[in-house]
Amino acid sequence: MRWIRYEADGGTSYGILEGDEVEEVSGSPFGAHRRTGKHRALSSVRLLIPVVPPTFYAAGINYEVHVREAAALLGREPSLPEKPDIGYRANNALIAHGEPIVKPRDSGERFQYEGELVVVIGKEAKHLSEAEALSCVFGYTVGNDVSERDWQAGDRTMWRAKNTDTFKPMGPWIETDASLETMQTTVRLNGRVVSDFPTNNMIFGVAAYISAMTRHLTLYPGDVVWMGTDGATQNMKPGDTVEIEISGVGTLRNPVTAEA
Amino acid sequence: MRWIRYEADGGTSYGILEGDEVEEVSGSPFGAHRRTGKHRALSSVRLLIPVVPPTFYAAGINYEVHVREAAALLGREPSLPEKPDIGYRANNALIAHGEPIVKPRDSGERFQYEGELVVVIGKEAKHLSEAEALSCVFGYTVGNDVSERDWQAGDRTMWRAKNTDTFKPMGPWIETDASLETMQTTVRLNGRVVSDFPTNNMIFGVAAYISAMTRHLTLYPGDVVWMGTDGATQNMKPGDTVEIEISGVGTLRNPVTAEA
Repeated sequence: MRWIRYEADGGTSYGILEGDEVEEVSGSPFGAHRRTGKHRALSSVRLLIPVVPPTFYAAGINYEVHVREAAALLGREPSLPEKPDIGYRANNALIAHGEPIVKPRDSGERFQYEGELVVVIGKEAKHLSEAEALSCVFGYTVGNDVSERDWQAGDRTMWRAKNTDTFKPMGPWIETDASLETMQTTVRLNGRVVSDFPTNNMIFGVAAYISAMTRHLTLYPGDVVWMGTDGATQNMKPGDTVEIEISGVGTLRNPVTAEA
Repeated sequence: MRWIRYEADGGTSYGILEGDEVEEVSGSPFGAHRRTGKHRALSSVRLLIPVVPPTFYAAGINYEVHVREAAALLGREPSLPEKPDIGYRANNALIAHGEPIVKPRDSGERFQYEGELVVVIGKEAKHLSEAEALSCVFGYTVGNDVSERDWQAGDRTMWRAKNTDTFKPMGPWIETDASLETMQTTVRLNGRVVSDFPTNNMIFGVAAYISAMTRHLTLYPGDVVWMGTDGATQNMKPGDTVEIEISGVGTLRNPVTAEA
C-alpha cells in the first residue's frame, strides 16, 4: 500500500494511492484513521513530505564503497564502522518530491546527492531483538542526503553540510509492501545513471540498526531512519535534476536551483 | 511570564503560572491561544516538558573551562571552537522536571550532568543579524545534558552517550522575562553545589548562534537551542538527585534511578 501526504483545497491530508488516484483518509497512518471514499487524481494534489518525524535518524556511513570514497574525498584514512552508531538529521531541511534543492550562494562545487533508503517507524518500540526488529517498521520511502563536502570536512558538526534548508528531500510516498532483499537504488543526474547499488548491501542492515538503537532509545510512530548511501557521489549545480529510484518503493525527483 | 505544560484530569494543556497557581490556556504559546479563567494549584498538576521541539539543537562545546575539562577527560588536546557550529540532540531522550533519569545497566561510572540554558524559539526566523537575533526568542528554560563519558569517547556518534531515553531533562517551565546578562547557573548534587557559573559567559552567545544558524536554516516556533555547560562535571549514581538552577528562569530537579 502507498500512503501519501498532500495538500489539496487548502488542507493537508493523508491518502492512499492506487494507480493515479488518491483516496483521502481522515487521521494518520500512525494513529486512528479511516478511508473517506473521496477520490482525487494524483496530478491534482501537491505532495508533501510523507511524515514529519518526531526524531530524524540517519546511519551516515553504512556501505563499504562509500566509506572508501568519502575518506578519499576528505583526505582521511577509510575506517569501517564497528557497530551501528546512529546519527541525526534535522526537520528544517526536509522538502517533498518535486520541490527545489536550493544551492547556497556561499557553498562550494562539491555539492552532492546521496540516494538513501528511509525506514518509517510505525509502532513504539524498545528492546527489540534483530529477529523482532522489522515488526516496528511501517514502510519505506526515499531520501536524498544532500551534502556540501567542504562544510562537511571543515565544520565541527554537520549542521550546514547536511541540514541547510532544502538539503533533505524525502518522498514521494511511503510504501508498506516493499521487500528489502530485492530493492535496487538507482540515482540519475539529468537522466543519466550516476549510481546503482543493491539497497540492502549495507554494513549494518535495518534490523541490526533497529535492534541496537532500541537497546537504549524508544522509537516512536513517524520516526524515520535514513540508511546511508553507497558509492561515489558527483557534484550537482543549479539547473540539474536529481532522481533517486528504489525499486519497489518509488522515485524521488528534485530540481536544483541557486539561492536568490 | 511563566508558561507551563502539564497533565491534569487526563488531558494535556498549557498554562500560565502565577505564584503557586496555574491558569489554563487553550491553544499553545506558539500559536493562537486564550486564557480560560480556570485556575488550579501547581501542586495538583503533573509537569510535562514545556515544549516538544520540531528540531532539538545543542551548542555542545560553548564555555572555555568545560572545553579544557572535557578534553582532559577524553585524553585529547583542548581545542576551542572557532565558530558557532550547532549540533543536535533527540526528542526521545526528553523528560520533565521531577521525572527520573534512568542510569542504564551497561553504562559506566562516568555518568554525568551538564547544566544548560535552553533557548525556546517563538517565531519563524531566517537571516537574522546578531542585533535582530533575540527577537525570535520566546523565552528560556533549563536543561540537563546528561552524558555517559565512555560512550561519548568511544562511539562514532553521541547517540547513546547523550540521547539514551531519559538523558535530557528539560523544564520546569518557560520564563519569558529573564535577562541573559544577570543569569547564574548553579548545579547541586544531593543539595551540594558542584558547579556555579555566569550563564552568559559563553564562547558564542545566544545572538551569535541564532544569527549564524539562520544564515542557513529556518528556526521554527518551539525549536529549542541548548547552550552548553561550563566547568567540570561529576559522576551521578542511582539514588542521587541533581538540581540545576538558573537565576531568573527556574530550577530543574530530577532523581537518578537504576535501570530495572
